[in-house]
Amino acid sequence: MKTIDLEISVNSRHTRIFIGHALIEKMSGLVNVSKYSSIAIISDSIVGPLYASKLKQQFIQDVLIHLFPSGENSKNLSIAEKIYKDLAHHGFDRKSLIINLGGGVTTDLGGFVAATYMRGIESINIPTTVEGMVDASIGGKVGVNLNHWKNYVGAFHQPKIIVMDIDTLDTLSIRNLTAGFGEIIKHGLIADKEYFEFVTSKKPKDFCKTESTEIISRSSKIKKNIVEQDVHESGKRKLLNFGHTIGHAIESLSLETKHPLLHGEAVAIGMVAEAMICQLAGMVSPKTLQSIVAGIRNVGLPTKIPFRVKQNNLLGLIQKDKKNISGEIQWTLLESIGNGIINQKVSKNILKKALEYICN
Amino acid sequence: MKTIDLEISVNSRHTRIFIGHALIEKMSGLVNVSKYSSIAIISDSIVGPLYASKLKQQFIQDVLIHLFPSGENSKNLSIAEKIYKDLAHHGFDRKSLIINLGGGVTTDLGGFVAATYMRGIESINIPTTVEGMVDASIGGKVGVNLNHWKNYVGAFHQPKIIVMDIDTLDTLSIRNLTAGFGEIIKHGLIADKEYFEFVTSKKPKDFCKTESTEIISRSSKIKKNIVEQDVHESGKRKLLNFGHTIGHAIESLSLETKHPLLHGEAVAIGMVAEAMICQLAGMVSPKTLQSIVAGIRNVGLPTKIPFRVKQNNLLGLIQKDKKNISGEIQWTLLESIGNGIINQKVSKNILKKALEYICN
Repeated sequence: MKTIDLEISVNSRHTRIFIGHALIEKMSGLVNVSKYSSIAIISDSIVGPLYASKLKQQFIQDVLIHLFPSGENSKNLSIAEKIYKDLAHHGFDRKSLIINLGGGVTTDLGGFVAATYMRGIESINIPTTVEGMVDASIGGKVGVNLNHWKNYVGAFHQPKIIVMDIDTLDTLSIRNLTAGFGEIIKHGLIADKEYFEFVTSKKPKDFCKTESTEIISRSSKIKKNIVEQDVHESGKRKLLNFGHTIGHAIESLSLETKHPLLHGEAVAIGMVAEAMICQLAGMVSPKTLQSIVAGIRNVGLPTKIPFRVKQNNLLGLIQKDKKNISGEIQWTLLESIGNGIINQKVSKNILKKALEYICN
Repeated sequence: MKTIDLEISVNSRHTRIFIGHALIEKMSGLVNVSKYSSIAIISDSIVGPLYASKLKQQFIQDVLIHLFPSGENSKNLSIAEKIYKDLAHHGFDRKSLIINLGGGVTTDLGGFVAATYMRGIESINIPTTVEGMVDASIGGKVGVNLNHWKNYVGAFHQPKIIVMDIDTLDTLSIRNLTAGFGEIIKHGLIADKEYFEFVTSKKPKDFCKTESTEIISRSSKIKKNIVEQDVHESGKRKLLNFGHTIGHAIESLSLETKHPLLHGEAVAIGMVAEAMICQLAGMVSPKTLQSIVAGIRNVGLPTKIPFRVKQNNLLGLIQKDKKNISGEIQWTLLESIGNGIINQKVSKNILKKALEYICN
């Protein structure tokens, strides 16, 4: 049994990350919860029933468990309002604690509630998915969607601690486990070539627990290092957008089909397209592009859009990306595997060719 | 014509306050707006028609004017969501600017939208009421109500500049003008005896424009000095709560009557009750209490609750105050006129006697 203890420091606030086994059963030893006047566990209708009551037993206080319907569609202001009102009805005050137990939807939504309830109360993240662990729960970006506008309402709010209990990954479906590797592969591509080669060397389900713990830990460190240098996404943090400008557009379109893609799957296809941009722009060789595509395929992630799509719809969505400034797209691209570069411009011609590459 | 230029510095962000005449017509000279990709003016159905088009003419960009129904009832998440969607529909990005034009409801609501749209964009406050100028627009507290839970959802967000155009006060009703003096009297009571005596020396409508400008400026300075020392209300900022613990409860109850009190009116009665607490606790003399009550009355503000009220209802609401920690009320009281003191405890017996004093 191993506990990895990372510390993120932003704006002189410290967030500790614990990574290990059976950590939910050890929560009371990880943080001093006696100082909180009351505690709420925010979780969804799938994850809550699995772990919420075990977690609740760790505390001497009365614990409010608030479950919301599972899925991305719950990440909106109406569900946030229901949580606020539940907290208010139960007399939650400024010294109350919110524990977000679940995937990225839960840490985004519950984190936004924590950021804004009474102008901000403390929170703890317990991510229970790969993507939640290595991406959504770290870095303090919280928020909800406005219809199809993803994360248009949000805040920056650092949790007090982040507890990654590797055992919670046992209940993930293989598809969900694999999708989580979208962000992990991205970490390799923008920051560490050897890591990219390691994580794409076999299928996610074939990594043993020790290897999984190692991967969660290394990806967390890569994200932490980037976030610490740029909390509010004015510079280096944009590295994390690799694959996401096109990936978000694919994800949005897929939500209108019968078989929506998971975030990590859309990002995988987005990374293929954005790697193709790099090759077309002469930044990387055709061989490098092939290594990237082969790695993504080897993990079991898609490399082409699995549904019919009009290129103009895709282009329209890409141009509406939240990260654009005055309508101009700021691309994050690769100079080589392991070296991302921000604030790049891409000609419309190259963009169109790259989109053709991922359309069937 | 006079421009007073105050500068608030919190967390290394600077907010300039301009106070003077005909400033709305001079907006383009007060701040460099050319750097913003788009501009929205948020205002209500009463103030918007008076000044929004004049303000809009100051900018070369297209300006979106979003008007919401006037009144405290608009300070909620549904109206915030309508504004978010209006911004998103019009392609507002991270380099857009929100200008909040109106009273406290507008700067609280529009400020909350600015704090959370795309995790925060820049804003400018143009308060058009006395209370908006000397209180709501300064200090970065923004938020909306959850039904009767006032300001339960919110954030801290400092505007880029605050523009106080004294001329906008000309269109205020005498009742609104007078209610604004509730907060002004509070500033005197907690920080400056000579100022208290000056502002209670006659009716608000009888101050000439030069005197009004002076009062807005001195109150702004008092609030600014307190806020700079304690942005997140963990210490000294609590001084500003004088009169508000009981005042908020009175305000809430009055909303259920046919003649709701204005915020400043409820605070005036709250200050009388809390001054009575000080006298009952032996902190101030009966003569000091009488000076406070006489001053408030001289301005034309109420000193007793003008409707029937059950003391238990009032007590219940006071105990639910958002500023309480673990159910215990932290009172802000006076050691003398001009000297506030925070984190005081008050016996239930004294509290009940003080409430009797303001009940008819």
